[in-house]
Amino acid sequence: MPVYHAPLRDMRFVMNEVLDIENAFAQLGYEDCGADTIDAVLDEAAKFCENVLAPLNQTGDQEGCTWTETGVKTPSGFRDSYQQFVENGWSSISGPTEYGGMGLPNTLAMAVSEMAATANWSWSMYPGLSKGCSNTILAHGTQQQRDTYLPKLVSGEWTGTMCLTEPHCGSDLGMLRTKAEPQRDGTFKLTGTKIFISAGDHDMADNIVHIVLARLPDAPQGTKGISLFIVPKFMPNEDGSLGERNTVHCGSIEHKMGIKASATCVMNFDGATGFLIGPENRGLNCMFTFMNMARLGTAMQGLTSSEGSYQGSLVYAKERLQMRALTGPKNPTGPADPIIVHPDVRRMLLTQKAFAEGGRMLFYWLCLLEDQMRKTSDEAEHKALDDLMGFMTPIAKAFMTETSIETTNLGMQIFGGHGYIAEWGMEQIARDARIGTIYEGTTGIQAIDLLGRKVLPSRGDMLRKFTKLAGNFCEEYKDIESLAPYMTTLTGLMKNLTDLTAEIGFKGMQNPDEVGAASVDYLMICGYLVFGFMWLRMAVVAQHALDNGSDDKFYRAKLHTTRFYFERILPRVYGHIKTMRSGAANLMDMDAELFAF
Amino acid sequence: MPVYHAPLRDMRFVMNEVLDIENAFAQLGYEDCGADTIDAVLDEAAKFCENVLAPLNQTGDQEGCTWTETGVKTPSGFRDSYQQFVENGWSSISGPTEYGGMGLPNTLAMAVSEMAATANWSWSMYPGLSKGCSNTILAHGTQQQRDTYLPKLVSGEWTGTMCLTEPHCGSDLGMLRTKAEPQRDGTFKLTGTKIFISAGDHDMADNIVHIVLARLPDAPQGTKGISLFIVPKFMPNEDGSLGERNTVHCGSIEHKMGIKASATCVMNFDGATGFLIGPENRGLNCMFTFMNMARLGTAMQGLTSSEGSYQGSLVYAKERLQMRALTGPKNPTGPADPIIVHPDVRRMLLTQKAFAEGGRMLFYWLCLLEDQMRKTSDEAEHKALDDLMGFMTPIAKAFMTETSIETTNLGMQIFGGHGYIAEWGMEQIARDARIGTIYEGTTGIQAIDLLGRKVLPSRGDMLRKFTKLAGNFCEEYKDIESLAPYMTTLTGLMKNLTDLTAEIGFKGMQNPDEVGAASVDYLMICGYLVFGFMWLRMAVVAQHALDNGSDDKFYRAKLHTTRFYFERILPRVYGHIKTMRSGAANLMDMDAELFAF
Repeated sequence: MPVYHAPLRDMRFVMNEVLDIENAFAQLGYEDCGADTIDAVLDEAAKFCENVLAPLNQTGDQEGCTWTETGVKTPSGFRDSYQQFVENGWSSISGPTEYGGMGLPNTLAMAVSEMAATANWSWSMYPGLSKGCSNTILAHGTQQQRDTYLPKLVSGEWTGTMCLTEPHCGSDLGMLRTKAEPQRDGTFKLTGTKIFISAGDHDMADNIVHIVLARLPDAPQGTKGISLFIVPKFMPNEDGSLGERNTVHCGSIEHKMGIKASATCVMNFDGATGFLIGPENRGLNCMFTFMNMARLGTAMQGLTSSEGSYQGSLVYAKERLQMRALTGPKNPTGPADPIIVHPDVRRMLLTQKAFAEGGRMLFYWLCLLEDQMRKTSDEAEHKALDDLMGFMTPIAKAFMTETSIETTNLGMQIFGGHGYIAEWGMEQIARDARIGTIYEGTTGIQAIDLLGRKVLPSRGDMLRKFTKLAGNFCEEYKDIESLAPYMTTLTGLMKNLTDLTAEIGFKGMQNPDEVGAASVDYLMICGYLVFGFMWLRMAVVAQHALDNGSDDKFYRAKLHTTRFYFERILPRVYGHIKTMRSGAANLMDMDAELFAF
Repeated sequence: MPVYHAPLRDMRFVMNEVLDIENAFAQLGYEDCGADTIDAVLDEAAKFCENVLAPLNQTGDQEGCTWTETGVKTPSGFRDSYQQFVENGWSSISGPTEYGGMGLPNTLAMAVSEMAATANWSWSMYPGLSKGCSNTILAHGTQQQRDTYLPKLVSGEWTGTMCLTEPHCGSDLGMLRTKAEPQRDGTFKLTGTKIFISAGDHDMADNIVHIVLARLPDAPQGTKGISLFIVPKFMPNEDGSLGERNTVHCGSIEHKMGIKASATCVMNFDGATGFLIGPENRGLNCMFTFMNMARLGTAMQGLTSSEGSYQGSLVYAKERLQMRALTGPKNPTGPADPIIVHPDVRRMLLTQKAFAEGGRMLFYWLCLLEDQMRKTSDEAEHKALDDLMGFMTPIAKAFMTETSIETTNLGMQIFGGHGYIAEWGMEQIARDARIGTIYEGTTGIQAIDLLGRKVLPSRGDMLRKFTKLAGNFCEEYKDIESLAPYMTTLTGLMKNLTDLTAEIGFKGMQNPDEVGAASVDYLMICGYLVFGFMWLRMAVVAQHALDNGSDDKFYRAKLHTTRFYFERILPRVYGHIKTMRSGAANLMDMDAELFAF
């Protein structure tokens, strides 16, 4: 298993040098979250993730979760490390102070999450889902619901879930069947089966709070007849202690390709007591809070998979001796050269590095935008940030997970045969990463959300939010000679993308399938351009630092990687553009019966 | 687990309609292998693969192999089904008649292998490796060695292995250390450790014949000091019965991402008795027979993974109801439409179909070329075929396995969440496929072989063998209106590729790293063009059939898929071309110490 080292230098570079986070936090009213606090949090969290969570990653995969009559058992060490996590206060960094949280910015909490997630993704899913749960209750719950659940969720003593999927409905939530029957006391009895419920049952915390989508008896059909409910595993007493066991049980757990230490549960609701949260039949709207967070969290999984895989393969590429460099021996006294001398190994490593670090830049920036959006009282600013986040979220989710399939496969590839062997840990990273493009809305769903529900209905306005920002940036820094060609390339491609958007919009008015046929290529093109912008933002800071006399090799690496990104990754958009423009007919003209074997 | 149906219609289309195989076989002297024989073999083999091997695929994955003191145990049913396989004569289809084989063309045997491999790849590796072993003994063994080993290997009573890799040397065989000390009786004592030995030990056959690379005491360093040895698990007595147990043992088996039912063994040679095969110090040359076969076999794995995954996801895409078509309900009486109505699902399915069927066309064609090469007594023809095979083999191996990573991931993606769950079988196909780009020479190794050892040293001559063939084909059929645009595209891209080859050759003379830096993009471009040629060959036949009045939808599907391939897959080459032309500097200028995290 690769040893995890928290990439603190790069995390601080993004936060301090690119995002000027201390100032940004101060402007949001987080005056207490100065450089010292940020540093201390990152340093301590790094130790916990490196020393406590990372060692449980491979054993967790091997042991997996176990279903028993009395509940799901997580792998050895999971419960204890989670208790430590809670006791050390890691759960409550960004929780509201009125419910016992530290009230620090979410961006800082997400930097901690990044480390936990790279160290042990399966483990990190348990607290990860709690946060969406508590945010949903904070946003949509009654005061009583907040008072009952938030202190325990914020502290981490209880964890949360999100119960959407049913056997016959995944992407298509309008088809869901779980029933909620109103009772005289104002509660509801929920009956139905939910599947793929992460952390649906486990032994790490005392109670589990399920956020459940279900239908009231007289609800309209489709997505407009879905309501949201809180269903606790144990009924909370008024004094906060645990009461009666609710009739929600884990029927079985799934055997999966990866994330084996994360319990994926079939949850049976047998007349389980639930509490309505938010307005009747508006459950899906309330759930969006949770879903958008989960999408950003999955985007983060993409970056952490790329990071973890890069860390492993880089160490190996420097140590493994095999063949001589094509230009002659570089390690003449050894039996062969380290494989990092080979151009193709470098291509693979730089691809991993470009997606890991570019992903970090994008993710932290989006977290900061989200903090800003949550804090602002200016309606116009909120709208502008909401639009930008609406554009960026499906891209970050789909693009960062799609590219993590590539990077984690490259990690295995660099290891050669050893990459396929469990012992070395690289294949686990690839297996764990693989779920990323599927859950929280597949890549296809994200792509339709982006193009069909956001960019086109806004007549391109949501795209322009991004192109304007990136265009202004390129204009501002166009005099930096080393980066000028890349700025020109990015600006030109954004112009292309704007034209292409109009072209698809026009075709889509005549035939809606044109939108579906273009959507995934469109999303991938957006992803490559957004990452281009991210790399330029980092490159400008790095170039300034070098111009100001720094001799830190870190900055030179940033400039090299920017060059690599623009010369060897970004050109993929030309293939996507050509494919996308080929239209829907080559997909739709073939009768379904002609698909055969 | 997807149910396997042998794609007999497509197999026969390629063999009978595109390759005119009956005639081709007759010209090679296989007059006995007429249409009836071919049909009977395919039909019977299909039944065996569908009914006996396919049901053991998922259970084999779940159970895996088990190491014991007395040898490796394969999963339940493996031994019995292998006995049936041997008794039914499937092992000996193409074996030489003088050693008990049926003496049928290898192409036909490989069609049988394709079915076994799709049904159960892990299982098929046991007989798959035997064939390389017997071919090596046939090509390089003494008459006595042939008489001793071939009857048993051809019948399948014994199986074979290929022992190359050692812990410190995989791609770099020059570093291998296993020693072979000559004994007075003409035998050798082999000492050393080999790893990643597929089928190194198992309980399916009575004896195992290891083909082992090792060094004689006074051998020159590097690859020119490697000799080849036969090391049987049990020493054969003169009467063919089994004698003493040799001192070669399986020390442990690997725990791998996939192909879990295939035993991947650490083999310890403790002064094991071996017999020199071929000339001293020329072992690597002799091994090339085996390695080229193994590469073609791995190419086949690529196509079978694509095929198996396509079969699974197609059934699901037609059955799974989720969302409505963007153009309005297609299944108005149902709760939702089958997901095959969605453009992006069709994009994924057609990608699988294009790579599975294109791969089959390429693979069968290469098998036929190989049969022709083996049979010809004309030196010039042999050289021409050898050159073409030399060009095609690394492309087929690397391209078909790289694209199978994509297709098998798409198979999971079409299943949504269920794609990640073991029960449905799609993730097993992806895990099993994943080894393809690694073993038998990684993609990087194949790419250097293609560009650095074949195309450039031949001054482009080996590329021209292909471009001339495909160019003449396009010229011959340029009047088929429906295909003319694709012929033009392919011809143009081949011209580009020729120019690019010269460009890289020129740059490579100044800096060898330019060759390494270009190699994988170069191979992928070649792969896309070769597949373009394959699709055109199939499309010409399909168009003729339709022009001649056929109303078989099979032909229309071929034309649709050709269009899809040219409009939505082939454009990827533009990204590769641009990336490849960016040169080596963006990979090599960055100091190794700047790679960090």
